Amino acid sequence: MPREITAFSNPLVKYARDLRDKRHRKASRQFLAEGLRILTEAREAGRLPRTLFYAAQNAGHELVHDLSMAVEDAGGDCIQTTPDILSKLSGKDNPQAVVGIFDEFAADLADLDRSAAGIWLVAERLRDPGNLGTILRTGDAVGAGGLILIGECVDPFSVEAVRASMGALFTVPVVRTEWQPFLDWLRAGPGQLVGLSLDTTGDYRAADYAAPTFLLTGNEAQGMPADYAAACDLLVRIPMRGKADSLNAAVATAVMAYEVLAQQRG
Amino acid sequence: MPREITAFSNPLVKYARDLRDKRHRKASRQFLAEGLRILTEAREAGRLPRTLFYAAQNAGHELVHDLSMAVEDAGGDCIQTTPDILSKLSGKDNPQAVVGIFDEFAADLADLDRSAAGIWLVAERLRDPGNLGTILRTGDAVGAGGLILIGECVDPFSVEAVRASMGALFTVPVVRTEWQPFLDWLRAGPGQLVGLSLDTTGDYRAADYAAPTFLLTGNEAQGMPADYAAACDLLVRIPMRGKADSLNAAVATAVMAYEVLAQQRG
Repeated sequence: MPREITAFSNPLVKYARDLRDKRHRKASRQFLAEGLRILTEAREAGRLPRTLFYAAQNAGHELVHDLSMAVEDAGGDCIQTTPDILSKLSGKDNPQAVVGIFDEFAADLADLDRSAAGIWLVAERLRDPGNLGTILRTGDAVGAGGLILIGECVDPFSVEAVRASMGALFTVPVVRTEWQPFLDWLRAGPGQLVGLSLDTTGDYRAADYAAPTFLLTGNEAQGMPADYAAACDLLVRIPMRGKADSLNAAVATAVMAYEVLAQQRG
Repeated sequence: MPREITAFSNPLVKYARDLRDKRHRKASRQFLAEGLRILTEAREAGRLPRTLFYAAQNAGHELVHDLSMAVEDAGGDCIQTTPDILSKLSGKDNPQAVVGIFDEFAADLADLDRSAAGIWLVAERLRDPGNLGTILRTGDAVGAGGLILIGECVDPFSVEAVRASMGALFTVPVVRTEWQPFLDWLRAGPGQLVGLSLDTTGDYRAADYAAPTFLLTGNEAQGMPADYAAACDLLVRIPMRGKADSLNAAVATAVMAYEVLAQQRG
């Protein structure tokens, strides 16, 4: 049976709210995801929240009902609450219909089957949570096998990243690792490492992308280190016709990924 | 000569800070832009801030010096201030080296020369300032003639949009208009209107994009209204291989724009 919580001072409300903070996520290994669309996506991917908050007035909504039943069946906790508390949890004026507390999850390089997909996304020192989430969303769209995060990247479980992923966090495997273990794993099997770079004349439309292709995107401000670029099988650039010298990292990744997809789908 | 301001309570600091708010921007027709990269881009595009804030400790930095000289030569106001006040103005913990107050500017449809570019971007009811800025940045990169905003769009002069544009706000003309005036203008000359849609079988890679191509992107959540789609010369879709049914709006625009650019550059 759902519990009712209407007090901002309730410890569970405070706990959930604190999960917007990286330090608290790290300590508890849990994170927040919001919105019916994202939580339904999560459920279809086999991930249910430990705790589900929803507005009492939405209890009769079919998707909310189905979700809360599933959470209770799995031994989770359902909390009927107020729109104001939902707003507080999501940090937005317009409250989401549902907010869930999920356990963090992770994949290892060893879990990845590189033959399962023609495209894999790799990002190093990604700084912006919106970029990370958007790259995951694009990864889902192109059927990428996963996103491999190299080095000190922004937290994929941050509220902004989860939101920008539109649920792809639950469907696209994310591995957090370092450069050398990644390279060791990559070179132990087939796979072409393609780096996006400004320091090459190789046009991204003129190259051949055999499956599996691993697309490496560098840090938003600095691009990738020289030794990462040197380790790539292929460096390509996207033409720039204007005043600026770079694209948004999520945009560049998407333009590349769709070129690879177009070639691989023939 | 630069003035010195070190008090948070200074009215000019409060005025600048208030420009983060849409209501204040609307009343004053001024906006904030931050960071040496963006302000230098603006200067090269012939736009200087009316008021330039910079940290006293950066006064000797070459780009800051050049910028402040240019602002003073143009009759603007230079303010030496503290990193704390710069942080307050930009709403970020890491203060930017410079923050400028600019006059808003605008282009009309009548100002646009459609023969000047092969690609034009059109967005309707765009809601997210980061998407708007990112679309501008992509527009700069593909050499788009401009961005035409239809209907109730987010403010292109919001701090988030200016930041995401990385300076492209100053180099890519932005027109704010409504659907009917846009359509009337479009049909008064050559131009192919291409709509991104989920309700078509037309693959974006299989279509021909003759210059000038106008790429229409719909609202992030709802896509474009049926009558907008009906008015398009061509509807195309980007393939989706995953669970989700759409891409981020800025990503979808970029994937399309780069396909058009690839065709038009032969």
